[in-house]
Amino acid sequence: MYLLNALGNATFENYAGIEGFTEMAYQMSAHVLTVGYAVMLAALFYFVLTIKTVAPKYRISSVLSVVVMVSAFLLLMIQQQNWTGAFEFNADTQRYVLGNANDLFNNGYRYLNWLIDVPMLLFQILFVVTLTSSKFSSVRNQFFFSGTMMIVTGYVGQFYEVTNPTLFFVWGFISTLFFVHILIVMKKVISEGQQGAPEGAQRYLGMIWKLFFVAWMLYPGAYLMPYLFSLSLEPSLSETAVVARHITYTVADVSSKVIYGILLTLTAQEMSKADGYDYEKMESAI
Amino acid sequence: MYLLNALGNATFENYAGIEGFTEMAYQMSAHVLTVGYAVMLAALFYFVLTIKTVAPKYRISSVLSVVVMVSAFLLLMIQQQNWTGAFEFNADTQRYVLGNANDLFNNGYRYLNWLIDVPMLLFQILFVVTLTSSKFSSVRNQFFFSGTMMIVTGYVGQFYEVTNPTLFFVWGFISTLFFVHILIVMKKVISEGQQGAPEGAQRYLGMIWKLFFVAWMLYPGAYLMPYLFSLSLEPSLSETAVVARHITYTVADVSSKVIYGILLTLTAQEMSKADGYDYEKMESAI
Repeated sequence: MYLLNALGNATFENYAGIEGFTEMAYQMSAHVLTVGYAVMLAALFYFVLTIKTVAPKYRISSVLSVVVMVSAFLLLMIQQQNWTGAFEFNADTQRYVLGNANDLFNNGYRYLNWLIDVPMLLFQILFVVTLTSSKFSSVRNQFFFSGTMMIVTGYVGQFYEVTNPTLFFVWGFISTLFFVHILIVMKKVISEGQQGAPEGAQRYLGMIWKLFFVAWMLYPGAYLMPYLFSLSLEPSLSETAVVARHITYTVADVSSKVIYGILLTLTAQEMSKADGYDYEKMESAI
Repeated sequence: MYLLNALGNATFENYAGIEGFTEMAYQMSAHVLTVGYAVMLAALFYFVLTIKTVAPKYRISSVLSVVVMVSAFLLLMIQQQNWTGAFEFNADTQRYVLGNANDLFNNGYRYLNWLIDVPMLLFQILFVVTLTSSKFSSVRNQFFFSGTMMIVTGYVGQFYEVTNPTLFFVWGFISTLFFVHILIVMKKVISEGQQGAPEGAQRYLGMIWKLFFVAWMLYPGAYLMPYLFSLSLEPSLSETAVVARHITYTVADVSSKVIYGILLTLTAQEMSKADGYDYEKMESAI
């Protein structure tokens, strides 16, 4: 395990970087990270341009989507620059290796993006659905507390992913407990929201629950990636795991932020129509 | 074939880069790549500023054009920076060569831009035309599936364009099968859309089909470029092929995204008028 001593406290992306990445692995990572932040900026325009298609009381949901898009765009762009800034092409070995005196690569920018986005994404749905038995402020506070704790504990844990597997798993486990709490509250929110909602909105809310469950489950998968590709309790340092993690995080981010936000807009459109808000008529009136 | 051994797994732009590019070839590429993303940002403003000239139900087409412009602008800008960041002017040989420790050049940013844009461009027309016999959700899903698969298989294939011609052609062939499927579905969508549409809209839809066919055919041409300039089954490493590829991709991107989007806006304007939506009167009303 001299690799560990060689790089100290760092993420497995850097260890693969000692032997180096093939051009394909390095470039695929750079491309996937880039497409991630490009989607956020593109979707920002979608949320701004469609805000008037929903009744005023639902528009705060689009505003929160815009907030999420801005922060995700910026932090994922920095995350991508962290990747391309860390590794350099070595013409002798024909591989990309950690450059001399460059910053190590670390997924921390991503985590601190989630510190903004997770509470926003969880609050967002509360402005679309109507809670029947739960109290708004109670659900909001539970989402805020567990959302924030889930990210902070995961953020601390990821620093240990190669140097101290025990701490890595302990922090990851604590983070997962908060995640399970979020899942339970979200399931309740969506079930209550479906009651009395127009049929189209009910269908979209059903899709949102499925999307939420699958997309948010990808994050613990990506956290554990070095160990998923390993048959022992030592992390796999394969470049396949590195690329797989970048792809998983990007798919999860696009699903849980962009597609989730679009489905909430569609839900709010259905509810607006049922409330008597007719965007098309309003915009065509002379 | 010592060039291949010298750089291993890389795209043919880099091989030309070993002997180096003349200033003309290097600069023409830099300029063409730059004009590509500048057009996207300029057209973004067109689509935002003309959104109200069409009736509300067609506006999602303009919103999707904006989404395409934003992502294309960002990814083509990074693609251009990849070009200028890879090569450096060598005063001894008077040529541009791959710089020490620089990233290799790779067209992958372009491909991952298409991963966003292709589904959006294909969905876009479905919000303008009225399908007479096909089902909206069926066409949308076919477009999404074949569009995504076409890009992913082409993306994988392009990594092998110099190192493994067999894999390059196999992946390219698979990608082409999805492309043919898209062409068939698009022809059907446009034919159905023309039925019962006002005369002006019918004419624009006819133009859209011709543009679509020609512009999208340019992409396989650009993919095959190293071999189009070669008389054998070894890729041509000429700088003419490199510059020709940049020009072809840029012409194809501007046609298939910007001109296509403008024609769809014009189609939607004709349909809006026929639906009784009078933008000029509305905006002049006191």
